[in-house]
Amino acid sequence: MKSHNVWSGTNRRIYMQEVGTRDGLQAEQAFVPTEEKIALVNALSHAGMAKIEVTAFVSPKAIPALRDAEQVLREIERVLGVVYSALVPNVRGAERAIDARAGEFNLVMSASESHNLSNLRMTQQQSFTALSDVTAVARQEKVAVNVSLSCAFGCPMEGDVPDAVVLDWCARFVDELGANGVTLCDTTGMAHPGQAATLTQMFRERWPGTELTLHFHNTRGMGLANVLAAIDAGADRFDASLGGIGGCPYAPGASGNVCSEEIVHALESMGYDTGVDLAQLIESSKRLPALIGHDVPSQIVKAGRRLDLHARPADFDAIRQRALAR
Amino acid sequence: MKSHNVWSGTNRRIYMQEVGTRDGLQAEQAFVPTEEKIALVNALSHAGMAKIEVTAFVSPKAIPALRDAEQVLREIERVLGVVYSALVPNVRGAERAIDARAGEFNLVMSASESHNLSNLRMTQQQSFTALSDVTAVARQEKVAVNVSLSCAFGCPMEGDVPDAVVLDWCARFVDELGANGVTLCDTTGMAHPGQAATLTQMFRERWPGTELTLHFHNTRGMGLANVLAAIDAGADRFDASLGGIGGCPYAPGASGNVCSEEIVHALESMGYDTGVDLAQLIESSKRLPALIGHDVPSQIVKAGRRLDLHARPADFDAIRQRALAR
Repeated sequence: MKSHNVWSGTNRRIYMQEVGTRDGLQAEQAFVPTEEKIALVNALSHAGMAKIEVTAFVSPKAIPALRDAEQVLREIERVLGVVYSALVPNVRGAERAIDARAGEFNLVMSASESHNLSNLRMTQQQSFTALSDVTAVARQEKVAVNVSLSCAFGCPMEGDVPDAVVLDWCARFVDELGANGVTLCDTTGMAHPGQAATLTQMFRERWPGTELTLHFHNTRGMGLANVLAAIDAGADRFDASLGGIGGCPYAPGASGNVCSEEIVHALESMGYDTGVDLAQLIESSKRLPALIGHDVPSQIVKAGRRLDLHARPADFDAIRQRALAR
Repeated sequence: MKSHNVWSGTNRRIYMQEVGTRDGLQAEQAFVPTEEKIALVNALSHAGMAKIEVTAFVSPKAIPALRDAEQVLREIERVLGVVYSALVPNVRGAERAIDARAGEFNLVMSASESHNLSNLRMTQQQSFTALSDVTAVARQEKVAVNVSLSCAFGCPMEGDVPDAVVLDWCARFVDELGANGVTLCDTTGMAHPGQAATLTQMFRERWPGTELTLHFHNTRGMGLANVLAAIDAGADRFDASLGGIGGCPYAPGASGNVCSEEIVHALESMGYDTGVDLAQLIESSKRLPALIGHDVPSQIVKAGRRLDLHARPADFDAIRQRALAR
């Protein structure tokens, strides 16, 4: 092994980005009260998340769970150093997001035409045009733009998406639109660590100055392994969702987004510096079930941290005495 | 990155060892009928598992779920190249296991005195004496011996176990008893990838000729990452459990053993050669809930393989027509 290998963090900085407040809550049946959303974002800020995707400026009819987008984004605390981003699908959303002082726009389209049409009801070319329009608004208002590319590691309808196709879209975002950052999204948990390492390495070599985020789902149990493969290939920025909320519509009952506290727990155990206070994060996650009305996938909430110790059996001394008497 | 890195399997052989039939079924309330156990072992043999821990020769009163140990081990098919092992706690168990033609004895003790006493009701020294007695029987009968060291990555009552303590026990098993193999067990899911890499590397350097198995639990979501860290450090042999059965008594509701089909799915996706037919393995896993009376943690059974594709929405053509008409 190399002396500096991916298994030993040696205090390297990894930036954790919370998406549960948008990607997670938008999928919930329950409407989480506005003041609870604000308190949740504030808790995540103070826990040390580097970026928080606070909400989405979409049609309140399409996603009623986030109909309070303006109020939430306006009323959260702005902790120094934390980036407050919002999903923005079009110019109308961009104007709303600017009014509410979004720190960054997150724009979305898919690497697969089938997924883009099914999910966004537009062709990829139409989506790209919409992205260009939003980017023009952002540039005028001096707001940073990140573009999230869905299905970058495969499409549930089309299968594998060639790396060249993914990189061509990245080139259009970075070179043509001038996006500040790109997120490669494993929308339905198809990424494996080999892909995670390869795509990360190719992106980093081609655009060393562009912020790169990896967005993995744990649908097939490969989430953390993908994070580590991407770190080994040069990534330092990951989306994750508190409690692991935000499911996968193609696999009922399966996990969705990688869980924030699971990723932080693993990385901190390995000696990475996530800047996140894990105890605070776990406290926030424990409050989620009451907000959304159901249990969350988080294994850290269920099992505790690795050094949260358990008492010996009540009759331990008697067990020992009996053993020694043999 | 190195040109040959852990993220790219390049057909390297990884040996998968099934423990669900022992470690999984012994924890179940339901008694799985003997003929069903035999059919399950046979299916796992034909699916290509390298080793199967078939059963345990413990007291039928202590573990009634495995009270048919003799019959199961005697009546399974013996597929060429597959090792059929059995857990053996003492000389009485060793004699029963030999009568039933066990291919290997698996002996167990813990790296932590608290866990050894709590779990086995003996001091570590008493357990080691019992292991020596069983090993003497095995040597006489020319049966291979593997020793499984529980809590090698931490004890839920004592916390971290120093690497030196783990290696000292390994030395007693390999150098003193002449064990053919050692399994480092992450009994309650405390291992993180840094530890997995370090302990594997230290073991491999010191005992290059001894079979080394890593036994990870996914209790805190680090199972696959630990497998990959161990591979990077020279391991090629892993325990796993069909469906992920076999829970963790210290974390109700949390995952236990890493799931055989999840590990095979990930490794095969990355280009490793596990020798396992994943489709057959998944079919066996799908039959488990009917046998044990409850759902299993397997995410591959829930979500399918990464390239098990989904149909486009029924109205996909209409969506496209409407989009193009804009």
